[in-house]
Amino acid sequence: METFFSFLERRVDDCSSLVCVGLDPHASDLPSPTAEAARAFCVNVVKQTARYAAAFKPNAAFFEVFGARGWTALRQVIEAVAEESARKGSMIPVILDAKRGDIASTAAAYARSAFEKLGAHAITLNPYLGRDSIEPFIQDQEKGVFLLCKTSNPSGGDLQDLMVTPAGGAQALPLHLHVAQLAQQWNTRKNIGLVVGATHPEALSRVRAAAPDLWFLSPGVGAQGAELETALKAGLRPDGKGMLVNVSRTIARATDPASAAADLRDEILSFKRQSYAG
Amino acid sequence: METFFSFLERRVDDCSSLVCVGLDPHASDLPSPTAEAARAFCVNVVKQTARYAAAFKPNAAFFEVFGARGWTALRQVIEAVAEESARKGSMIPVILDAKRGDIASTAAAYARSAFEKLGAHAITLNPYLGRDSIEPFIQDQEKGVFLLCKTSNPSGGDLQDLMVTPAGGAQALPLHLHVAQLAQQWNTRKNIGLVVGATHPEALSRVRAAAPDLWFLSPGVGAQGAELETALKAGLRPDGKGMLVNVSRTIARATDPASAAADLRDEILSFKRQSYAG
Repeated sequence: METFFSFLERRVDDCSSLVCVGLDPHASDLPSPTAEAARAFCVNVVKQTARYAAAFKPNAAFFEVFGARGWTALRQVIEAVAEESARKGSMIPVILDAKRGDIASTAAAYARSAFEKLGAHAITLNPYLGRDSIEPFIQDQEKGVFLLCKTSNPSGGDLQDLMVTPAGGAQALPLHLHVAQLAQQWNTRKNIGLVVGATHPEALSRVRAAAPDLWFLSPGVGAQGAELETALKAGLRPDGKGMLVNVSRTIARATDPASAAADLRDEILSFKRQSYAG
Repeated sequence: METFFSFLERRVDDCSSLVCVGLDPHASDLPSPTAEAARAFCVNVVKQTARYAAAFKPNAAFFEVFGARGWTALRQVIEAVAEESARKGSMIPVILDAKRGDIASTAAAYARSAFEKLGAHAITLNPYLGRDSIEPFIQDQEKGVFLLCKTSNPSGGDLQDLMVTPAGGAQALPLHLHVAQLAQQWNTRKNIGLVVGATHPEALSRVRAAAPDLWFLSPGVGAQGAELETALKAGLRPDGKGMLVNVSRTIARATDPASAAADLRDEILSFKRQSYAG
């Protein structure tokens, strides 16, 4: 049975792309603030960019804000990804950006919601509640999680950069690096990755050193100002994989989302050609 | 204009109760695994226990798992609390247990979802993303947040008990105590509280010392085995308030939820009479 990350890597090979297209239907992007408009906006982005997308990442908040209809729209957007996948003959993973985190019995309900009801293949999770809050999401190795490690927002460091001293006399290190080490330990089923913002290239390098094998989901290129090449240099694995570059607004708000996604895919390819040329 | 916590304190006075009734419609509690059964189960608990409830705490996961219909059911349960409040002439706060946490623009959408669309008065939040992820929820002082500090689950300590050294040379302390200090600092609008599990009475005492004024939401009494008196001794403020004792299954699964809630209310009153007797 394949793991979530072997599934993702197959897709990455199929489309020669590390681009994750974020689906964040902000009210300001929509002709009217309705669930139907959010659905139509996202389905259009999906159709236009599917060829270049290693994955799609719908953000639960922007659907939840429309209540029950928003929840239906979210399911329909995920179905649209499945339809585009079938049309293209290559399954595109859907990472639900939900940042959930709760005690085990509650976490089990969130996992059912994301994987069974909505049909997502992976989910972003918050690590603050520890190992047992992650467990219900990783029992099935075909489903994946990305644990928040170092986020791209300005206050991300309030907790994540605190110096921590793990029990057992190990050396002090920033909390986000400790989370990276825990993720590396917990990854026995090969279905745990990390969210590491591209806005912090030094952190990306350190996390890459702490978790050499893990996949990163890296937001921050584009609207949040991170520089693509610097981020790739810091975060890619030696095999030229291991990092999904997530872009939401820069692609979704482009006059031609397909070109915007293709350009980003090609910029990454060109960087890899320069850096990994034999 | 009143703050969330002055609203909560008025309700606490009206019903002489510190009981928060958790509304967690686990599939195993329902005659059939449907949103309608979840709604009916919770509305029954609301009607039976409203007299003794300082607050109600619906858990988003157990509604989300039913998709769009679950979302409608959640809204209806919150409406049922408003109707019982009107009937009793005393508004009962609703704390949405959602444990959200995201970058600011996304957090703003979650805040609209919780406060405007669903009609909750407060929400539980995860502090891992720092100050700017909390801000959209506390701008309106009539709405409140409870930040996860020390949770009641077995792995809660994986991150929360790590010893951290804050910048500026302050003494090392467990991460959950640092979160308590941050919450105390951030509480300029008097609408931030903390989630501190009753299962850790020593932690409750330490957090009370670090955040003398803040309200705690304390799960863990009952099904999770915490001892009520020990928890009250550790967590109550000198004014005999400052702590909501959350009980979900022990009340909801009781043959007579009203008696179960009344008994818990009375046990707390009796403890307070003994401890604070003039």
